[in-house]
Amino acid sequence: MLDWPISLADVERARLRTKAFLTKTPLMAHPLLDEAVGHDIRVWVKHENHQPTGSFKVRNGLSAVTALGVEERARGVTAATRGNHGLGIAYSARALGCKATICVPIGNNPEKNAAMKALGADVIERGRDYDEAVLTANELVHQRGMTLIHSTNDVSVIAGAATMSLEIWEDAPELDALVIAVGGGSQAVGALTIARELAPHWDVYAVQAAGASAICDSFHAKKPLKKDSADTFADGLATRSTYEKTFGALLAGLRDFVTVTDAEIAEAVRAYLSATHNLAEGAGAAGLAGLMKLGPRLAGKRVGIVLSGGNIDRETLKRVLVQKDAM
Amino acid sequence: MLDWPISLADVERARLRTKAFLTKTPLMAHPLLDEAVGHDIRVWVKHENHQPTGSFKVRNGLSAVTALGVEERARGVTAATRGNHGLGIAYSARALGCKATICVPIGNNPEKNAAMKALGADVIERGRDYDEAVLTANELVHQRGMTLIHSTNDVSVIAGAATMSLEIWEDAPELDALVIAVGGGSQAVGALTIARELAPHWDVYAVQAAGASAICDSFHAKKPLKKDSADTFADGLATRSTYEKTFGALLAGLRDFVTVTDAEIAEAVRAYLSATHNLAEGAGAAGLAGLMKLGPRLAGKRVGIVLSGGNIDRETLKRVLVQKDAM
Repeated sequence: MLDWPISLADVERARLRTKAFLTKTPLMAHPLLDEAVGHDIRVWVKHENHQPTGSFKVRNGLSAVTALGVEERARGVTAATRGNHGLGIAYSARALGCKATICVPIGNNPEKNAAMKALGADVIERGRDYDEAVLTANELVHQRGMTLIHSTNDVSVIAGAATMSLEIWEDAPELDALVIAVGGGSQAVGALTIARELAPHWDVYAVQAAGASAICDSFHAKKPLKKDSADTFADGLATRSTYEKTFGALLAGLRDFVTVTDAEIAEAVRAYLSATHNLAEGAGAAGLAGLMKLGPRLAGKRVGIVLSGGNIDRETLKRVLVQKDAM
Repeated sequence: MLDWPISLADVERARLRTKAFLTKTPLMAHPLLDEAVGHDIRVWVKHENHQPTGSFKVRNGLSAVTALGVEERARGVTAATRGNHGLGIAYSARALGCKATICVPIGNNPEKNAAMKALGADVIERGRDYDEAVLTANELVHQRGMTLIHSTNDVSVIAGAATMSLEIWEDAPELDALVIAVGGGSQAVGALTIARELAPHWDVYAVQAAGASAICDSFHAKKPLKKDSADTFADGLATRSTYEKTFGALLAGLRDFVTVTDAEIAEAVRAYLSATHNLAEGAGAAGLAGLMKLGPRLAGKRVGIVLSGGNIDRETLKRVLVQKDAM
């Protein structure tokens, strides 16, 4: 029997700790998006792009930082990130008055680095990729006594992500299904937790980028698999392995797991723009891309998706709009 | 002595009538936007692009439609529009269960027409410009007994717009100034109403597009002037005359009135994208463009601006991102 990583009580506690800092994001219907999706599906979009850092990750960061004791906060927090997790931690540290040092790989998106610095965080650019940035963060733990907040393998992080699905349930308990993008799995395990505790009629589907499909492959193989590379313009989904705290729940709870190509993700970014005039980054549009792929299987259903982040940089947006073939 | 068009009581009543349909939009600080604006100005952005129709106009529409009696609603509502006012009316009519017929000029933006139709409105394309669309709407009033909701010359419309400034005041009463874009003036008169009733320390500045500067010119001439054309890509600002219900209050209350070029508006759209990852349409970014123009005069101040709408179509966005010289 799986030891489920978080309880409903964990989610309620995360909401209590974070509610002074965040307002509930809207869950919206967009008639033109329903037309774009087709199959008589009625779509509800959770607008996490409206969060103060532009993505749901600020829930995770605030949940984790508010869970620390006074002495831990005084020593500061650190995290390894490509962007949104770091923004969430930087925002949370500033809100709670503690120091944050964010570790990113060399060559990380300069707009994301600038945004973290503007929130008062120190940003250390070192190492070739995310995994090497984790090593730098671990050094800070040992050298400076900082607390590392992992983007996935942390109960308070997952409980923070689950507050989003709790809000979805409160606004639209009647949904039939959710389609959730997976980078590390905090959003999806959050949704599965609300489904098992409050909405057993919800079918939760997961989606990964075809070029970064380690967790999807592992789901279908029913065992953890690693990949050597993560190749997608949706950098929030660019992971290469499963995570201890989420994989078991994903395996136990998901209805199915699909992949979408970068071209399909780019098409979803364009659909959000035209049908809702919201800006989505690649990872933020992957749920919609997954819904479009699942289309016929969800015909006639009420489906919730998450526009999980809007932090697309100008150059990438330009490519999505202009050089369609490049995606 | 000017007969001020609306009272604080009108605003409170508008909020009471509309609150079941709308949630409060966030007022956010964006550190990178402060850097882009410079002059040590601290900027607060009211995110009306998060409204369900993507612009503040849904406040105006809901305030007007909820103010109608049961029999008027039964006969339906009509409006002339280039886009956002029509979306607000269509959304409101659907929410209140009444029929809406929206009149647009031939060649109106097809994305906006599609969005109004998707909300259940009938859309009539007739006439060469907005003024001719007004004639069509007036015919519907006479032929079908529909109620015309003017986008500016309507007390309940202005009171709806003022609910936005009431929310700004509740979240940041300490602001020193606001910079507000003017198409017809409902937003600016709303802000001036809150300033005179609750925040006499607020300096309210207005901004128009240089190619559609009738109200700005009239302000400086201290008398109503008309222009023959309205030439700006910010179609929400493309007006050619003053309006009876707003001009007196603008003249009496504004600290100053400036214009910005289309190039400056396009630069503000790009600044919103890079610094906040929010999508702004031209009219929605004009407040930021005006603030950038006023920069040195507001050095060190706390300034509120409104991202009043995000309904930019894909082709225009592409031009703003790629063909900078074309703007």
